[in-house]
Amino acid sequence: MKDVAVIGVGMQRWGELWDKSLRDIFVESALLALADTKVDKLDNMFIGCMSSGLFVGQEHIGSVMADYLGQRHLAAGRVESACASGGLAFRCALVEVASGMSDVVLAGGVEKMTDTSGDGATYALASAADHEYEVYNGATFPGLYALMARAHMEKYGTTRDQLAHVAVKNHKNGAKNPNAQYPFEITLEQVKSSVMIAEPLRILDCSPITDGAAAVILCPLEMAKKFTSKPLVKVTGSGQATDTIALHTREDLTTIASTTEAAKKAFAMAGKKPEDIDLAEVHDCFTIAEIIVSESLGFFAAGQGGPAVEAGETAIGGRIPINPSGGLKSKGHPVGATGIAQIYEIVKQLRGEAEKRQVENARVCLAQNMGGSGGSTLVHILEVV
Amino acid sequence: MKDVAVIGVGMQRWGELWDKSLRDIFVESALLALADTKVDKLDNMFIGCMSSGLFVGQEHIGSVMADYLGQRHLAAGRVESACASGGLAFRCALVEVASGMSDVVLAGGVEKMTDTSGDGATYALASAADHEYEVYNGATFPGLYALMARAHMEKYGTTRDQLAHVAVKNHKNGAKNPNAQYPFEITLEQVKSSVMIAEPLRILDCSPITDGAAAVILCPLEMAKKFTSKPLVKVTGSGQATDTIALHTREDLTTIASTTEAAKKAFAMAGKKPEDIDLAEVHDCFTIAEIIVSESLGFFAAGQGGPAVEAGETAIGGRIPINPSGGLKSKGHPVGATGIAQIYEIVKQLRGEAEKRQVENARVCLAQNMGGSGGSTLVHILEVV
Repeated sequence: MKDVAVIGVGMQRWGELWDKSLRDIFVESALLALADTKVDKLDNMFIGCMSSGLFVGQEHIGSVMADYLGQRHLAAGRVESACASGGLAFRCALVEVASGMSDVVLAGGVEKMTDTSGDGATYALASAADHEYEVYNGATFPGLYALMARAHMEKYGTTRDQLAHVAVKNHKNGAKNPNAQYPFEITLEQVKSSVMIAEPLRILDCSPITDGAAAVILCPLEMAKKFTSKPLVKVTGSGQATDTIALHTREDLTTIASTTEAAKKAFAMAGKKPEDIDLAEVHDCFTIAEIIVSESLGFFAAGQGGPAVEAGETAIGGRIPINPSGGLKSKGHPVGATGIAQIYEIVKQLRGEAEKRQVENARVCLAQNMGGSGGSTLVHILEVV
Repeated sequence: MKDVAVIGVGMQRWGELWDKSLRDIFVESALLALADTKVDKLDNMFIGCMSSGLFVGQEHIGSVMADYLGQRHLAAGRVESACASGGLAFRCALVEVASGMSDVVLAGGVEKMTDTSGDGATYALASAADHEYEVYNGATFPGLYALMARAHMEKYGTTRDQLAHVAVKNHKNGAKNPNAQYPFEITLEQVKSSVMIAEPLRILDCSPITDGAAAVILCPLEMAKKFTSKPLVKVTGSGQATDTIALHTREDLTTIASTTEAAKKAFAMAGKKPEDIDLAEVHDCFTIAEIIVSESLGFFAAGQGGPAVEAGETAIGGRIPINPSGGLKSKGHPVGATGIAQIYEIVKQLRGEAEKRQVENARVCLAQNMGGSGGSTLVHILEVV
């Protein structure tokens, strides 16, 4: 396998982009990524997108986006693993380059979640859960994560305040991110008094509905200097795993096994351990998710994720900064784009381009992108070389 | 890159499978593929599926299928390129194995098109066309292919009878295929007097709405004998390309440029030319599609596809047998599964297991799988070694 580098990254400011369509949003981010390199022509493109069909009635977006990007006839396809679709697109691009099949490959992610056709965003998002056994019975994602939160609170004593600390920290980081949908700070009291969604989760425990895209460009490490004069970022680890889609068939609601399995593979490939990671972007679709994931990745022992965020260990400047970008909570969560935006943030951090949210001495970083209630996970490790 | 072999194939009889759900259909085909090998445990799985979201409200099928297949925690994701989703899944599996990232990889395809939720099969299928410029204005696929048929007839003199000959030939082949949805012969007169759908295309010019799945298993060629005692089938060529999704932006309606581009790559990789191909499975979603594709692949000069099928050159026993399986027309077209079923047929032919539809001396075979009105194409070349 060839060594692979990320040579360019792009994303726009996320939010409710009423004046832009699905294709506009994607092409904008892809052009920004291209402009971050000296690349003119791509050899292949993978687009992570969870449900352009249910959101806007458009499948077959490989064809759409290659054309609108001005790369007619480009080999281009879409990949999907619910909210981990971006992570899967990155992995497919990595493997495509590593195999030698293609040289310059774009991995993008996109979702247009406002202004939807069909039955709206909640129905579309629910398609990431078990349609026959969860959705049919009325489950939605806030409800599923609320079950996980309750189980974690009862087993480990995780507190309502600790959940809120995740949101407060991520908004503090996101306030320094010019691309964030909600770039402002919030207080513990605001989280705890915000409207109840699914007990114990309140609206400020939830990531928002977002339009947005992100794109990164990969090539063999040996070719990278031809296309960029910036610090070289190498992909050293990749892991992918699934778990049962439905919560009721899991052995344990307080851990995410797909994340543990995917991380095991990524750490083994990179020859790293959790304590080697300088910062992580993880999938905080709900505050409880970040706490559980920080444990399932091995950053903290089971039950210690809550106390860790409360103690500031995951803040910028803490022992292991988590979500310096603001995470899904503050930056926004256009589901198919999130996994690529994590890579965007990590590349910015590794290059020292993260401005006010820069983590000092970030040299080994991890991205964890998750589908549904943990039915799938992609973990990647990137290092500056 | 490692050499890659196909070591197992599986599919069930296709049709209106009212008693089986999306997951039932996929798992059934995957278990058949596993039973065709000595493999117990997969390392990765790619599932081609066009729109499980619009058809049955279920995305995130990598997670669903890994679990229901009894392979919990398996790395598994979905890929989509409209009706070429199966071909894309096969290519992703090929690259995954060729890269050395995984050894034993399943490439599957599935679609549950009857018994749909949402707005029905026609709306779901239309999502493979340009939602903003074609679908919004009322275009559906029979209409788009009718435009291509009319243009081909006017430019080259392709006749109504020649279109019908495609359907007659493919039903003759499909009558010998125990997995075909419509395993019976039809006459030229029946095609020409069947109900009009979009002039000049009648109902018997159109592939049907189908439930079905197919699965194939790949591994490094050097490991193949460990898992199968059957003749070894090597993947020697892979090509992928897109074109504009919308017909109105194409330079020429009488050819499919994505197919020509993808074929060019696959032929170059395999070191073969069109005249080296012993049989081809191609994407006859409508009768005109097979005629155009047979030209765009280089089997016949532009305008000669119609006369060729009329003269029997593409029949079993002809110069270049096309769609010995019965094609999409007779075998059925569960859109995401079709590209994998093409590989199933080719492996059966290369192994000499195609029974009454066996093509003599088939040693180099080609599969062409196409999305939408040619917005994307995957071409693969397989050889017995």
